[in-house]
Formats: sequence, structure tokens, C-alpha cells
Amino acid sequence: MSLTSTDAGTLVAALAAGLPAEALVTDPDLLESYRYDRAQFCPAGVPAAVVLARETAHVQHALRTATSLRVPVVPQGARSGLSGAANAIDGCVVVSTEKMRRIRQLDVGNRFVVTQPGIYNAELSRAVAEHGLFYPPDPSSWEFCSIGGNLSTNSGGLCCVKYGVTTDYVLGLEVVLASGEVLRTGRRTVKGVAGYDLTRLFVGSEGTLGIITEATLSLRPAAGRPRTAAALFASARDAGATVAAVVESGLVPSLLEIMDRTSLRASSAHLRADLPGDCGAMLVWQSDSPGETAVEEVERIGRVASACGATQVIEAEDPAEAELLLAARRTVLTALEALGTTLIDDVAVPRTRLADLIEGVQAIAERRGLVIGVVGHAGDGNMHPTVVFDPADPVATEHARSAFGEIMDLGLELGGTITGEHGVGVLKRRWLEREAGAVSMAVHRAVKAALDPLGILNPGKVFDPA
Amino acid sequence: MSLTSTDAGTLVAALAAGLPAEALVTDPDLLESYRYDRAQFCPAGVPAAVVLARETAHVQHALRTATSLRVPVVPQGARSGLSGAANAIDGCVVVSTEKMRRIRQLDVGNRFVVTQPGIYNAELSRAVAEHGLFYPPDPSSWEFCSIGGNLSTNSGGLCCVKYGVTTDYVLGLEVVLASGEVLRTGRRTVKGVAGYDLTRLFVGSEGTLGIITEATLSLRPAAGRPRTAAALFASARDAGATVAAVVESGLVPSLLEIMDRTSLRASSAHLRADLPGDCGAMLVWQSDSPGETAVEEVERIGRVASACGATQVIEAEDPAEAELLLAARRTVLTALEALGTTLIDDVAVPRTRLADLIEGVQAIAERRGLVIGVVGHAGDGNMHPTVVFDPADPVATEHARSAFGEIMDLGLELGGTITGEHGVGVLKRRWLEREAGAVSMAVHRAVKAALDPLGILNPGKVFDPA
Repeated sequence: MSLTSTDAGTLVAALAAGLPAEALVTDPDLLESYRYDRAQFCPAGVPAAVVLARETAHVQHALRTATSLRVPVVPQGARSGLSGAANAIDGCVVVSTEKMRRIRQLDVGNRFVVTQPGIYNAELSRAVAEHGLFYPPDPSSWEFCSIGGNLSTNSGGLCCVKYGVTTDYVLGLEVVLASGEVLRTGRRTVKGVAGYDLTRLFVGSEGTLGIITEATLSLRPAAGRPRTAAALFASARDAGATVAAVVESGLVPSLLEIMDRTSLRASSAHLRADLPGDCGAMLVWQSDSPGETAVEEVERIGRVASACGATQVIEAEDPAEAELLLAARRTVLTALEALGTTLIDDVAVPRTRLADLIEGVQAIAERRGLVIGVVGHAGDGNMHPTVVFDPADPVATEHARSAFGEIMDLGLELGGTITGEHGVGVLKRRWLEREAGAVSMAVHRAVKAALDPLGILNPGKVFDPA
Repeated sequence: MSLTSTDAGTLVAALAAGLPAEALVTDPDLLESYRYDRAQFCPAGVPAAVVLARETAHVQHALRTATSLRVPVVPQGARSGLSGAANAIDGCVVVSTEKMRRIRQLDVGNRFVVTQPGIYNAELSRAVAEHGLFYPPDPSSWEFCSIGGNLSTNSGGLCCVKYGVTTDYVLGLEVVLASGEVLRTGRRTVKGVAGYDLTRLFVGSEGTLGIITEATLSLRPAAGRPRTAAALFASARDAGATVAAVVESGLVPSLLEIMDRTSLRASSAHLRADLPGDCGAMLVWQSDSPGETAVEEVERIGRVASACGATQVIEAEDPAEAELLLAARRTVLTALEALGTTLIDDVAVPRTRLADLIEGVQAIAERRGLVIGVVGHAGDGNMHPTVVFDPADPVATEHARSAFGEIMDLGLELGGTITGEHGVGVLKRRWLEREAGAVSMAVHRAVKAALDPLGILNPGKVFDPA
């Protein structure tokens, strides 16, 4: 199937016929701001129109119109994605859920929340926290990423090491299909096995199978106030050995982050802090277990770090000290951005292979003459090697692109995946088949064709339908 | 598509051409034992042949043969299922994975195990426990159900209230598709979002989309030794209120089971134990939190029970006492079976609606003149109302069937699902559309057609493809 090139006027008129004026954007200046998410190196077209849906019926009208006119549809949340999955296509209809921001129901007794997709992760998290509840998935972008985007990319975050990722909290969805029909998946009970797990088929599908217009999310009881500690190491090897030893010991921290030498130097300069000169890596960890167990767990991880060669272990005595220990980690991307344009990778490897990944990335950086800071969620093996380059320098830019690919190749060699939490989008499309294999790609295409027979939903994202 | 009626001789010859002699069963007496799983009221045909696969290649050969001859295939694990999903179809090839019992790899450092599907749940659990690891999903049938069957029905169990169900532990699968091709899904890392979540599409699909020949399962650190307590109540209402209050308090027990008056009486008679005459329900719970936290949590739940009207709260002082408290729960099905033939339902409701479900089931029992014992996983709202009847009495049998359906209707009315962990199979096929709706059924059929275009895989199970 190829999408027909519909006259923009016809399309806009058809959209306008079923939408309130404030739900339809066609002003060229405004359209410009709906072209890109936050990915680097990903082309974007110019949409013919943006539908700012307020309710499910608006999404249905947009999709019915797109189906009847064979126009591509690009779903957008808050455009905070890092893989280009939300980038516009020339002549498409962008369907944005950014105005669908209402929490429909909070059931404290049964610990679930029903929400529209446009609400930011942090807003939802705070709303449920007021009732003593906890929505764990916490991507670093939580203040400006939407739940709909989190669902569509199956976002992770810092506390995944203990609490899992977005898909682990989805009980059910309302999805508008390419045809405009409304599908309800899942349930509101904790358990349920009636029929296929369609819920999780849509989670992480990056807008290629349908548009999520409502989600029922399970919640946990509020966690304890976390205890925090950090350790410095002469080498990434010692830090990696610590992570492996922590996992093997059966300890489950609620946060376990790593920074390599390059990212430590950048953060240190940015924060005007003074790190010991021989510092090759840092780990920072938390436990939010109840009562004294948190103190005990944080101490036990400290002893593991010391046994693995930590040059220094620092335990935070209070929340202010904890924030200081976390500051380097929190600031690293800003610190690296101060050095140039950044291209953030997102490989995940088995946790015993962390040091191999970090050393391999350092070797790539040296060979390519680039700065690459490695920072990430050590507790689940999900690393964000961040390539820093000068986009005005075409040679450096080419090296940055090559390094980005070599990092994924390295991740695959180490038994890992090309993306732990950012998704494939446009950025990693040509690596997906290398990871998934030809049979898997044929199954992907069959599932896509079953749900979107005209191929109007986010075409060209994740994989090439042909 | 309709499956052709292939001559059994042709089919057997084609199967024999690619299988060792011990992997092919055609003896009519032996075929008889591969007709049924443990469901009641589900018809079963007679297979033309049973393939006792030892390796993935045998499954591939069976499916290639079935595809070329258009013969239906019924996948079987240990035939311990309770919904007829594994029941044979006349003239089909049963592909049994009961001889694929090897653990391929146990990675202690990265906490995952790669296993063939035929191994029993208890065997796998014990094998990983030797290395200080924990595979949580624990269906009551764990001593005689296979991991492959657990995956195909997304089994739950007693510790799900804290640890989740089978799908929460599946990192990746090897699946033989209808065509005979081998699909690998998922990964060996903790996180990963490359492509669609095909893994969880196959989990719970009851053999209708492919045959699982290998699974990579994530493991947890061993839990603490559980502390156990129980409470007796004058009414199911008080016990239900306790469960709701426990959930709302944020306490997460590692087990929280309920028995109603009928099931308590049956167990009590069976164990020759003496329960107080006014006992309307019992709750039993555990905490396996580390150290003294377990003691504290078990006590706190006891205080919640007292506040909700428990007539008696008993804390176990040692494992032997704990076993006594659990004995009534463990023996209830045997106790009910001693009273007649049993038909086990499996509805799940929001946890605040437990008492409504139990009282509603008691009303159905009275109206139908039946014994129905309600027992189940109170902590996640998943109840197993068990209808007891005399199959020699056609009127009672008809009442039992009707009551079984009325219990599902009641579950749906209370915001629940027709099946929390047993699956749809043949038994609940006509209720699935009532729960899922017409759009969902169309999507189910589209996905099924995409993955099994000839409709050879377990046809007629879960839903009617037409």
C-alpha cells in the first residue's frame, strides 16, 4: 500500500467537519512546533494539520478521516522522546494527546488510577502520592514527559531496578484503532487472563498500532523514605564488579546508578565540585525498604563496594546530603550538553557485563577521538553512553554517528539490546532487525498489517513495513 | 479456511519421516491418555498421533507437517489445565512438550534461567532455590504442572499478591510458529524495548499462536522465611472488609488467602478438625519480608483483622504451626471433591468487592440447591468458587453448569474478569466476548489470522476464529 497524496485543503476540511475549532491547528508557524521530538539525527516532515484532541471522539474522528483519505497519522505525546518516533511526516495528521490531561478515576481501595494520556508523569505521580500511593516508573524526563508517551515507549527510569518498567503497571488501555474504532483491553483487577494480552502489545509499540486514549494503571503503596550512599572507584571494572556482586548477593536497591570517568569529570566541572583525581567511576544507590532495613541494606551495599575495591564510600546522613550524592548523576546530561551536541544511546546488557560495556565504549571514544560519557541504570544494566560532538564539524559528526552504531553493536555482542527504554523510532530502525532477526521482523509486519491494514499509523517508525 | 480431513495413515507417515520412533505415539490405547486436561464439561476428540517432542526440531517437523496437510495441532504440557485448552480434537496431532525437560542455562549472576517447557514448576523452583534464587509463580498444581503450560495460560498462584504472575517473569521465548519457523522473542537483559512485546503476546495465548519450546525466565533473590497467621470471622463480609483494609493500609503480604463457610466446613470435616461453630470465613496470611519486618507485618495484619471484627487471630510460632494454619486452605479442593464432582470457577474482582462476590455466590448456591465452596487468593481478588454436584443426577448437573455461568456473570457485574489464572480454553469460550467486547474479538481474530493463517493451531480454543 502506498499512501495517497491528499490535497491538504480536502484533509483540513474533513478534519474540521468533526472537531471543535480549538482542536485543529493548521497555522504554518504553529505546525512547525509539532515537527520534532528530542532525538538527534532524525529527519522530520511538516504536518498538514495537528489535531489537539480533548477527548477520545476527536482521536476517532482524526483516524476515521485519515483512513478514508489514506493520510499518514503521527501520534504525539509531549515530544520528549529520544528516538524520533514522534517526528512528523510530510502531509501527515499529527494527533497530539497533550490536551487530554484528566485523571478520570483514582481508586485508592483497589490501588489503580484511570487517566487520559496527556498528563505528565510527575503530575500523575504527585496526584497519587497525595493518597499515599506510588506510581513507580520514573524516566529522567518525568517532569515533562506524558504518560501516553511513557506507554508508547514502555519507559523505564531510575527506580526500575526494584520496581520494573511502565508495562508492569498497565492493567488496561483504551485505544483508538486505525479504523477509528475504540478498543478496550485488559481489566481493573490485579489478575486476569481472558484472551490475548493486547494491552502489552500496544505498550511499547510507538504509535504504530493505535493511539492510546486512556490507561488504567496499577499503583503501589508509598515506599519508605530512601537512604542513600555512594562509592568512588579507581576503575569502571571495580564499579562493574560491585554491581554484579550486589545482584548476586540478592540485595535489591531501589536505585543503583553508575557514572564513568568522563561523565564524572563533566559533572564535576559543571557543579564546580572537586572529585579525587583518580576517580574512574562512581556508583550511587538507595534503599527504600521499610524501617531500619533501608539503613542496613545501604550499609551492606557499601561493604560490597569496599570489598570490590571502592576507594571511598559515603553514606548520606540526611536528605540534603543524599541530594548532594545524587547531584552529579542528575546533572550529567546538562554537563555533557555544555561540552557540545549530545547523542544519547540506550543499550542494556546483562548486569555482569557492565564493565565490558563501559571499557568498550571508552575504546570507541578513543578510536573516534570523541568524548563519550557513560552514565546509566547500573542495577538493570541499562546504560546511556552519551556521545558529545560539534555538529558544525562534519567529520566529528560522522564519527559521532559511527560511534553511536558501534555502541549498539557492542551491546548486542555482550548479549544485550539496542534499546533499554528509549525505543527504536527512526533513530535505531536499521538495528532492530539485527537484534530481532528475520522471523521476528516478519511477525512484526504481520501484526502491523493485521491492526493497521492501510499502514497509516506512524509509517516508517520502528521498522519498514515493506 | 476449513481444515482438510487428511487420511491418518498419510499424516502418521509424514510425521514418522522426520521423527525418532520414541517421539511418535500412534497406539490407540496410548492416544487415549492424551485426550483430556483436568477441566470438567469440555468435549475432547481423539488425536491421530501424539508427537512427544524431545527438541525444538521435533516441534518444527510436526508443525511443518500439519501445515502442509492442513491438520489441526493441539499443544499439550502436563495436561493439568482446568479449562480444556489442551483437550484433543478428532484427527489432530497432539504436540506434547512433556519430554522437553532440560534446564539449558542458569545464570546466577544475571538472575535468569533458560529452560525447556516440559519441566514441572516445582522442579524448576527447586533447581533455582539451590542457588539462592526464587521463581515466584506458584500455581496450586505446581508439583504436576509444566512451565510451558504455565506460560500458555499465564498462571498465577498463592504468592502473586506480592510477586505477580507468570508473565511478569518472562524475559524471552523460543516459539515454533504454525509454519514451523522458529521465532525468538525478548532478551536476556532486565530491560529492553526493541520492537513489539511479542513475548507477552504468546504468554497466555493458550497454544493458539505458536508452541513455546524454550523460555528465559527472570528470577528473584530468595525470599525470607515466611511468618504466618490466620483469623476467623463470623461473616465473609468481615473477612472481605479486612482484605480491603489491608490493601488500603499499604501492607503487601506474600500470601493472603480466604475460605468461606462452606469450604471451611468441608476442610474441617476432611481434616477431622474442630472449627468454632459460628465461623463464617477464614483468612490466612504470610509475610516473607526480611528480618523482623515479617513479624511486624503479620502482626499489623492481625490488628487490621481484629479491627474488622475477627473473632479470633492466631499467629504461628513455628513452621509446623504455620503448616497447620495453611492445611485447611491446602486441603479444601480435596475436601470438596470428597462431596461430589467439582467444577472450579476462577473469577477475579476488584479487592474491595470480595464480600459481594462471596455473598452473591452463596445466594446462587441457595437458589440452585447446590454446595458451592468459595476459596481463593483474597489478596488479588481472584476467587475459585467450586461447585459440587452429582454428575449422575442430570438436574443437578444442569444446575451446576448454570451456577458456573452465573458466577462469571456476577464477577463481570462486580467489575471483574471471567478468569484470573485458569484461562478460557473451551470452558469459558462463550463468555470471552461478553467480557472483551466485539472490537476486541475482531482484533483477537486479526492477530490469530496474522500468526496462524491456516488456523491449524488449537482451533476452537479461547474463541471461534470465524
